Amino acid sequence: MRHLKERIHEWLNEHQQEAVQLLQRFVQEASVQGEEKYVQAIVIEKLRQLRLEIDIWEPDMKELQKSEAFVSARTTFRDSPNVVGVLKGKGGGRSLILNGHVDVVPPGDLNHWKEDPYSGVVKNGNIYGRGSTDMKGGNVALLLAIQVIQELGINLKGDVIFQSVIEEESGGAGTLACVLKGYKADGAIIPEPTNMKIFPNQQGSMWFRMTVHGCSAHGGTRYEGVSAIEKAVTVIKQIQQLEKERNNRITDPLYSRIPIPVPINIGNIKGGTWPSSVADEVVMEGRIGVAPHEKMKSVRQELENWLCKLEEQDDWFKDHPVKIEWFGAHWLPGEIELDHPLLSSLSTCFEHVVQKPPTIEASPWGTDGGILSQVGDIPTVVFGPGVTEVAHFPNEYIPIQKMMEAAEIIALTVIDWCGIAES
Amino acid sequence: MRHLKERIHEWLNEHQQEAVQLLQRFVQEASVQGEEKYVQAIVIEKLRQLRLEIDIWEPDMKELQKSEAFVSARTTFRDSPNVVGVLKGKGGGRSLILNGHVDVVPPGDLNHWKEDPYSGVVKNGNIYGRGSTDMKGGNVALLLAIQVIQELGINLKGDVIFQSVIEEESGGAGTLACVLKGYKADGAIIPEPTNMKIFPNQQGSMWFRMTVHGCSAHGGTRYEGVSAIEKAVTVIKQIQQLEKERNNRITDPLYSRIPIPVPINIGNIKGGTWPSSVADEVVMEGRIGVAPHEKMKSVRQELENWLCKLEEQDDWFKDHPVKIEWFGAHWLPGEIELDHPLLSSLSTCFEHVVQKPPTIEASPWGTDGGILSQVGDIPTVVFGPGVTEVAHFPNEYIPIQKMMEAAEIIALTVIDWCGIAES
Repeated sequence: MRHLKERIHEWLNEHQQEAVQLLQRFVQEASVQGEEKYVQAIVIEKLRQLRLEIDIWEPDMKELQKSEAFVSARTTFRDSPNVVGVLKGKGGGRSLILNGHVDVVPPGDLNHWKEDPYSGVVKNGNIYGRGSTDMKGGNVALLLAIQVIQELGINLKGDVIFQSVIEEESGGAGTLACVLKGYKADGAIIPEPTNMKIFPNQQGSMWFRMTVHGCSAHGGTRYEGVSAIEKAVTVIKQIQQLEKERNNRITDPLYSRIPIPVPINIGNIKGGTWPSSVADEVVMEGRIGVAPHEKMKSVRQELENWLCKLEEQDDWFKDHPVKIEWFGAHWLPGEIELDHPLLSSLSTCFEHVVQKPPTIEASPWGTDGGILSQVGDIPTVVFGPGVTEVAHFPNEYIPIQKMMEAAEIIALTVIDWCGIAES
Repeated sequence: MRHLKERIHEWLNEHQQEAVQLLQRFVQEASVQGEEKYVQAIVIEKLRQLRLEIDIWEPDMKELQKSEAFVSARTTFRDSPNVVGVLKGKGGGRSLILNGHVDVVPPGDLNHWKEDPYSGVVKNGNIYGRGSTDMKGGNVALLLAIQVIQELGINLKGDVIFQSVIEEESGGAGTLACVLKGYKADGAIIPEPTNMKIFPNQQGSMWFRMTVHGCSAHGGTRYEGVSAIEKAVTVIKQIQQLEKERNNRITDPLYSRIPIPVPINIGNIKGGTWPSSVADEVVMEGRIGVAPHEKMKSVRQELENWLCKLEEQDDWFKDHPVKIEWFGAHWLPGEIELDHPLLSSLSTCFEHVVQKPPTIEASPWGTDGGILSQVGDIPTVVFGPGVTEVAHFPNEYIPIQKMMEAAEIIALTVIDWCGIAES
């Protein structure tokens, strides 16, 4: 086994340039929502080279809509295929899903980018471009892990199921489609950009829209009206109090270093029209974090109840309750027990490769891990080489060395988890 | 004199239908900003019938710009004439300006109007339409007052200067042009819609725009950013405190029944973009009331200094001070001494006509009275028949009876103030 680990390390070292080129090709395909098919074509070509059983399908909207976990603003997934490649084991071992999404968020204002967002250019040991960190670099690490196992002629006992999915950035319809299609396993790894930290827990989240009512009047006699802006201040204070209470309840040591484990963020506010008029409506949109052990429904209920309490401090809210809507995307939270063998396996392999113990933390955002664990009942760990800070930002990049390290750690974990079959 | 008062009352009674028709013609001309010339044409025709000395001119932008009091978003007043008609007295009496604006605010959403906004339709003793109350009904009262004096062959000692001005709704450039052209008098009456109350004091106002800075971050790690929305809440609280302090200073008994004599109204707020992102900027626009005794400049300074104090309670504001801009319109405040003879004259005439003492109050908004008194040094009283509550609102109307009463009160005041010349 010692010899095998060295061979894996050497093989990856020798194939770094090939890995870089694959990621460049991935990045150069601008796979924003609806445009995923070109990068999936490259994935399919790669899976074919790796001699995996390939499954390609466009998720079925009607099928997805039957699931409570489904969320999407799309009306069809036509031309947006999911791709799965299965490396069948010899039997008798644990199976593992390796899941990564190919959709990327839009580049935003191009003036903030030093290079074309889809250049894939290499500078100072980093590969640049939208999606490099989130999370095509992680996907390349997965493919490298499978490739090195194949190339070195290692026969696994358990199956490895590689999933190249769409729609993670919009709520996870791609991974949900995999679960609904019956892809299950004894564990899953998702190489989202965690700065090489291991996330056994992931914060879920939902979006909300609150409408606060007032009553218009001329600004010179503003006391004749009721300012929706002033009422919104009361609502904001109330939300801050709820955030405090929710976070006080969290005692999991994984969150000990995180100032606010499940924040409530009011992201935008808009209300009133004329400087000299009292504002009669304010709309605020935000995101509420969902703790790994929580149900989405109970979190919705808690916020709604909390807003009802406003009438205890201000009669205005009795007749003019804050309207709340749950809109847009949501991401399920996820968690795996801290003594789960997949976590131990990944941690051990990490320590072998990096020569120090991994940082194990709770993740501040949701991933498709929520769907795998909550809907698919598949124990899932999130761990990847991307740089958390540049995900969704201009000049996104990934350090090549981290991508190669992650590939090595994941290859060793796959072998440890699935087991080597007698030849 | 008793006989004369009866004749005036009778004459007005007999000419009510003519007055209604004149106001209908005024209302039917949609004299929004830039479209004042058609209603002014009717004014000119009326002044010609009244045999007044007529002055018609387009205010000169360059001349106006020399005045500190000038404010306008326009680049030219071409095709937007001011009209002045002078009834020369025989000499030896006090002169009086009768000032009214012809510009109206836009009708807004037409769905909220039961009739066409420019119908001038008569229903249940009211005349309906944009501008009926604010303030073409007041203008008709002025013209009726002059007409009855002319028709009854009364010769005045002092001059009466009727001013039909543009631009009151946008800061008073029309009246300012009258002052700059040299029109002065010993007193002035402006029949803005006061519900027949007499306003010796008028609140001035200015518009401001505040930009509050934050620092963006992902909502799941919102503690890594600084929410401009939360900082805006601090700014709103600070503004509320300033409003309190400014109003505590006001001891004038005229304001004793007014909950907030000079309010600060934050009329609109807008900030942040994405529900899952921490907002990095919030912009708020509002209106600050200016007390009659205050200078615009010192009020600006006070608000600016007050915002600087934010850094005492929150270090963030040290490096990220709130940016303040003074934009859009402003209206100068105005005041006349409570023992001024013009006020006594108007009050006495009011009591004679209405058979009860007038309500004398401070006005919650500015009018062109600020320009007449502060720039022209002309003691000015605001008093008119329009309905305060429907000014700038859909289904604006004016009760015909109030318009006729105001005409009678103003006619008597003109006679009392200017004096009757020996024939």
